[in-house]
Amino acid sequence: MRLGLDAMGGDFAPKASVEGAFLASRDLNPDDRIVLYGDEAVIQHIMDEHGWNSPSIEIIHCPESIGMGEQPTKAYTQKRESSIFIGLHDLKAGKIDAFSSAGNTGAMLVGSVYTINPVPGFIRPCTLALIPKINGGYTFLLAVGTNPDVKTDVLYQFAMIGSIYAESVHGVNNPRVGLLNIGEEDEKGNLFTLSAFNVLKDSNDFNFIGNVEGRDFFNDKADVIVCDGFTGNVVLKQMEAFYRVLVKRGLRDEYIDRFNYEIYGGTPVLGINATVMIGHGISSAAAFRNMLLSSRQVNEAGIPARIKIAIDGYTENKS
Amino acid sequence: MRLGLDAMGGDFAPKASVEGAFLASRDLNPDDRIVLYGDEAVIQHIMDEHGWNSPSIEIIHCPESIGMGEQPTKAYTQKRESSIFIGLHDLKAGKIDAFSSAGNTGAMLVGSVYTINPVPGFIRPCTLALIPKINGGYTFLLAVGTNPDVKTDVLYQFAMIGSIYAESVHGVNNPRVGLLNIGEEDEKGNLFTLSAFNVLKDSNDFNFIGNVEGRDFFNDKADVIVCDGFTGNVVLKQMEAFYRVLVKRGLRDEYIDRFNYEIYGGTPVLGINATVMIGHGISSAAAFRNMLLSSRQVNEAGIPARIKIAIDGYTENKS
Repeated sequence: MRLGLDAMGGDFAPKASVEGAFLASRDLNPDDRIVLYGDEAVIQHIMDEHGWNSPSIEIIHCPESIGMGEQPTKAYTQKRESSIFIGLHDLKAGKIDAFSSAGNTGAMLVGSVYTINPVPGFIRPCTLALIPKINGGYTFLLAVGTNPDVKTDVLYQFAMIGSIYAESVHGVNNPRVGLLNIGEEDEKGNLFTLSAFNVLKDSNDFNFIGNVEGRDFFNDKADVIVCDGFTGNVVLKQMEAFYRVLVKRGLRDEYIDRFNYEIYGGTPVLGINATVMIGHGISSAAAFRNMLLSSRQVNEAGIPARIKIAIDGYTENKS
Repeated sequence: MRLGLDAMGGDFAPKASVEGAFLASRDLNPDDRIVLYGDEAVIQHIMDEHGWNSPSIEIIHCPESIGMGEQPTKAYTQKRESSIFIGLHDLKAGKIDAFSSAGNTGAMLVGSVYTINPVPGFIRPCTLALIPKINGGYTFLLAVGTNPDVKTDVLYQFAMIGSIYAESVHGVNNPRVGLLNIGEEDEKGNLFTLSAFNVLKDSNDFNFIGNVEGRDFFNDKADVIVCDGFTGNVVLKQMEAFYRVLVKRGLRDEYIDRFNYEIYGGTPVLGINATVMIGHGISSAAAFRNMLLSSRQVNEAGIPARIKIAIDGYTENKS
């Protein structure tokens, strides 16, 4: 498998990204390759300086890079020699099997939609968050960084692809899908969730268990929780901020440590035709390493083919 | 001041409520009275058994009580001899100055609107949450338990009354009001917050500082954060659940301990013509004590008169 990485994206890149690639290269299969996209001279210098060379690492020279603060659509469409632009086009062309970046998230999302394209029939590609459950495993929350306004058909597809992700990447059997709401009872909610509940409740495409609440992120009530991207964004940022408070105050144990994003390094853009991973802007070398290994795992799961089959199936059932 | 308390409401009532009333009675001014609403024989028996009698405590016999699981509107309108119904009617009649309950929240909200009535011009009475800031004080988040769908004029009034509450009850000077959103930039948001931002931004009725995010609940960026009640409910339940996880795992310090709802015991229903306080269903004696003392403090702040002046003022400016 050929795993692409934007060497230039992230607050601590390219040093952290190159080191992460080197660390990941030691845990790959012999046939696997890591392909770094970025300024070749800079990358090679870092490798030579630190002895981070590996026969599994290739470099594709990209003279430009997109800054963290640049306007995503403008930067992506104009900087055609940037690491994100070239990386996503190589992914599209099949030259690599996955592409990861801790750089400009907006540009990655724009490129995911414009270049990689949504799976036919999948309305709104989305991202998800992994929330550690107290008793092990994760609650998968989507959407979190995209889609602040959604309609019920979009939420339905979040439930489909969240289930596919939980099952194929994390081995969760028949994932339980909950609708994030303000009460457990069927008739609770705002106008959107009341309507969404009725669309989700009779689904044969996933295992819908009903409404869940803000208190249910950490317990084992659901495996997948779906919500609009506005609520998901607030939830995720609240959780990340509180985790940082705990770390700062030295209030940690093995459960709290599982909130560290470095463990998985990055999360996929779901609903597009290939494996694209987005990492945290503050990614460390360990985070880059784990994002690359995660991208391998996500790619192996074959999510685009699975969601295509699922969409074709429910479209047929409806017609 | 005469502080009414529903002695029958809450998972551990009437024992915890009666003990809480006794504890509070020792910290009141000599002229203050606590008025317990509930089954007189039961209350008197508890008082005698534990020696919790106080000359500052009166009992108003109420033969009925509303259970935690009862349908609020039905229970409130039909149980006219319940502690909540009689208590709120005594408040309306001026026989008491404040009424608190840890019982059926829905029935308390129904009674607040039907019996106490909104301040004229205040569209949607609401409740708020107190989120401890790391450097002291609270972020006041509203709405949290009501109003899952709101329009921008309602959110505007949340900002007004949140500012009045922060200033008059907690002594915050010129409270900074933030709009809960998914990015700091003015143009970020979902359809609702984009529209709300434009309504809030030029206000002379409060000190609007712009968008805030889920990461800003704990820092000192804003004093008051406004959002629709759906998002607020999810945020509050997530926070409460995570606090319980920390307590269970022994991960506490002086900051984390400030998330204990017992410290303030209850929060007011804002935007109505009198002081109504709602407590947690699991209220302990300490929580009841502190809710009663909080009700005194909230009543002294004179929020109904203040919001009336504020509403009259902005209505005049508009016309």
